[in-house]
Amino acid sequence: MAAEAGQGFRPLDEASLIAYIKATPALASHLGGGLESITIREVGDGNLNFVYIVTSDSGAIVVKQALPYVRCVGDSWPMTRERAYFEASALREHGRLCPDHVPEVYHFDRAMSLIGMRYIEPPHIILRKGLIAGVEYPFLAEHMSDYMANTLFFTSMIYNTTTDHKRGVAQYCANVEMCRLTEQVVFSDPYRVSKFNRWTSPHLDKDAEAVRVDDALKLEAAELKSMFIERAQALIHGDLHTSSIMVTPDSTQVIDPEFAFYGPMGFDVGAFLGNLILAYFAQDGHADQANDRKAYKKWILKTIEQSWNLFRTKFVELWNKHKEGNGEAYLSDIFNNSDLLSVAQKNYMTNIFHDSLGFGSAKMIRRIVGIAHVEDLESIKDANKRALCERAALNCAKTILKGRRQFENIEQVIVHIQSFDQE
Amino acid sequence: MAAEAGQGFRPLDEASLIAYIKATPALASHLGGGLESITIREVGDGNLNFVYIVTSDSGAIVVKQALPYVRCVGDSWPMTRERAYFEASALREHGRLCPDHVPEVYHFDRAMSLIGMRYIEPPHIILRKGLIAGVEYPFLAEHMSDYMANTLFFTSMIYNTTTDHKRGVAQYCANVEMCRLTEQVVFSDPYRVSKFNRWTSPHLDKDAEAVRVDDALKLEAAELKSMFIERAQALIHGDLHTSSIMVTPDSTQVIDPEFAFYGPMGFDVGAFLGNLILAYFAQDGHADQANDRKAYKKWILKTIEQSWNLFRTKFVELWNKHKEGNGEAYLSDIFNNSDLLSVAQKNYMTNIFHDSLGFGSAKMIRRIVGIAHVEDLESIKDANKRALCERAALNCAKTILKGRRQFENIEQVIVHIQSFDQE
Repeated sequence: MAAEAGQGFRPLDEASLIAYIKATPALASHLGGGLESITIREVGDGNLNFVYIVTSDSGAIVVKQALPYVRCVGDSWPMTRERAYFEASALREHGRLCPDHVPEVYHFDRAMSLIGMRYIEPPHIILRKGLIAGVEYPFLAEHMSDYMANTLFFTSMIYNTTTDHKRGVAQYCANVEMCRLTEQVVFSDPYRVSKFNRWTSPHLDKDAEAVRVDDALKLEAAELKSMFIERAQALIHGDLHTSSIMVTPDSTQVIDPEFAFYGPMGFDVGAFLGNLILAYFAQDGHADQANDRKAYKKWILKTIEQSWNLFRTKFVELWNKHKEGNGEAYLSDIFNNSDLLSVAQKNYMTNIFHDSLGFGSAKMIRRIVGIAHVEDLESIKDANKRALCERAALNCAKTILKGRRQFENIEQVIVHIQSFDQE
Repeated sequence: MAAEAGQGFRPLDEASLIAYIKATPALASHLGGGLESITIREVGDGNLNFVYIVTSDSGAIVVKQALPYVRCVGDSWPMTRERAYFEASALREHGRLCPDHVPEVYHFDRAMSLIGMRYIEPPHIILRKGLIAGVEYPFLAEHMSDYMANTLFFTSMIYNTTTDHKRGVAQYCANVEMCRLTEQVVFSDPYRVSKFNRWTSPHLDKDAEAVRVDDALKLEAAELKSMFIERAQALIHGDLHTSSIMVTPDSTQVIDPEFAFYGPMGFDVGAFLGNLILAYFAQDGHADQANDRKAYKKWILKTIEQSWNLFRTKFVELWNKHKEGNGEAYLSDIFNNSDLLSVAQKNYMTNIFHDSLGFGSAKMIRRIVGIAHVEDLESIKDANKRALCERAALNCAKTILKGRRQFENIEQVIVHIQSFDQE
């Protein structure tokens, strides 16, 4: 901490933030002439950062500041403020590739670890909260498949030269502290005794222990962990769960890419799908006499299916559109007939599919027996009921993780998910 | 070139090299007091650099300078001098890990792209020349398996923390020009029409064309190319063919790692094995009444077999020795029983094996129908005889590349190689 504290960094509070904004035209300009009317609300409900909504008579912005520790734990868990640099970089890069679904960055101050960006206004809410409330988002699959196809395709070797790719890889290698956090909490702790692990106890005591002694599961998790570390396939968001997405029925905005680095595409796609599957298994815990959630569960499954199928379709469309471009992986004078290109695309998408199933199920497992749980399940107050939902999700995830290469399409996965329904 | 020419760089000749050495204690000290007796011999027979052997009454060193173009082509093919920095870095890193088989670096001058290093004295010769002459090297498999196991294991995630690994990955990302050269000449040009390609013509015209229209082969080559670019598994030599190795019957020295970067381990192992297989298929072209080369072919096959089997054994021994260490990939509190660790090791080595077969056969193919051929085959003056050797090697390589995942052990590969013998 001490080493990072100097060199122009100071943690802001509401008063000093106002002064900072007034001195920063890139921020002040978005608040119009009404700087005297500024109001500030701190809304950081995440685990890591401080987030301020700054409103004036004529505009609003969001200001986010990273402190040199994990907010929800305190300064006993130090964490580099440099994550703000990678968040700002990824927001800008992904925003360039998919401006409809990424908020614009107005200002980045590396010394202050401070990002000023577009305010994602009401009625946007965190997707996870919408999923808990049972709200349908008819464009969610469409928008998220747009986001994933564009951000992943255009930062892959199918589109880029090796020179550009390695420049990006080198840049994001420095986001190693965030990668290490993921390695620990997703791929390691759930599979060993760790003081950070927790689960619904005593209900899931045996289930948690079963994860720790399941050799086949541990082999798969280790294989995915190595892929996560070694495979620089695209600039991924790195934390694409349903709390990193803000929605209204017709808008979808992806935020918080502070874990961004060049990693396997399936880690993003899997995070999104895996968190939808968790939302699915949580529904029984939210059902009541007024709403049995059966129709909503169907909508979630449909959204999972459409998200993957649209992603696959759009990714291949981008590939076809840019097949004569500068991408190094599949050169047009080698992949010079449509049958051959088509087989290459099918193989490529099948690999992303299996990777996504692996990473998605690993992320489900860690949300049930690891350190960080999801509100979808945590908000089920009845522990018996919650444990039943969690066990169904856990068993589903374990079988997908171990058998992911057997699935030929998302429809088979949907059938598999339903087979773990409590009824 | 112009941009690189300044900032302290000047190409040396023999006269200016003497002055340079006299002004550089790290070099002069290895030549003892006899600086007045210095003699210099330029011996760079490679494609890229100038190499000087500097001898005095009391010592000898090698000085290598990279010029900003490919030596064998001239300044029409520019190439970054920074390759000397990566060569020096890899020599030092691999030398630390395997000092018996890597020459010591005495001095590196980045501005001058100049490396001063240990003179690998006679009777050391380039391994390829020994293989052409039919010389057996009883310790070759032992030494090369030592080199590969140590350099690859200790720079992998099995041994290293993620922090150290990503630091290394980022550093070597900048060696991108050398990676691009490999991508072009190994994975791309042989599979398309390119002015750089050549082959024994007209004998192999149809064979070369067959490579360019073999869709299954092109899919495999593209998959390996993506792995080469994306997968930062270990700090590899990057060009580990039999001309990057100097030998006597009881010494083995690996030189010229200017293509070094964090890539797939199989690229190094495959380069070595693939070049031994090329040497095997060249033997019929070197057979004469005095020596039918049959015994020598058996020795080559034995060396291939032993090189892989010893590499696998030593790599796993290092893994077992360091299993309680800081390596991130297989944590000891997860891989906490010997059965589980043993399965993980078996899977890991099988993957390296299949990768090695893939990369090795891709490197064989490019040496027959691509830009850079091997002296093993080129030195067969009778074009008919040479074409027969080349076709056998090419057909063997194609089948290994396409069917590599079917091989369970190196003994099966040996049987497969022999099935392409001309007799």
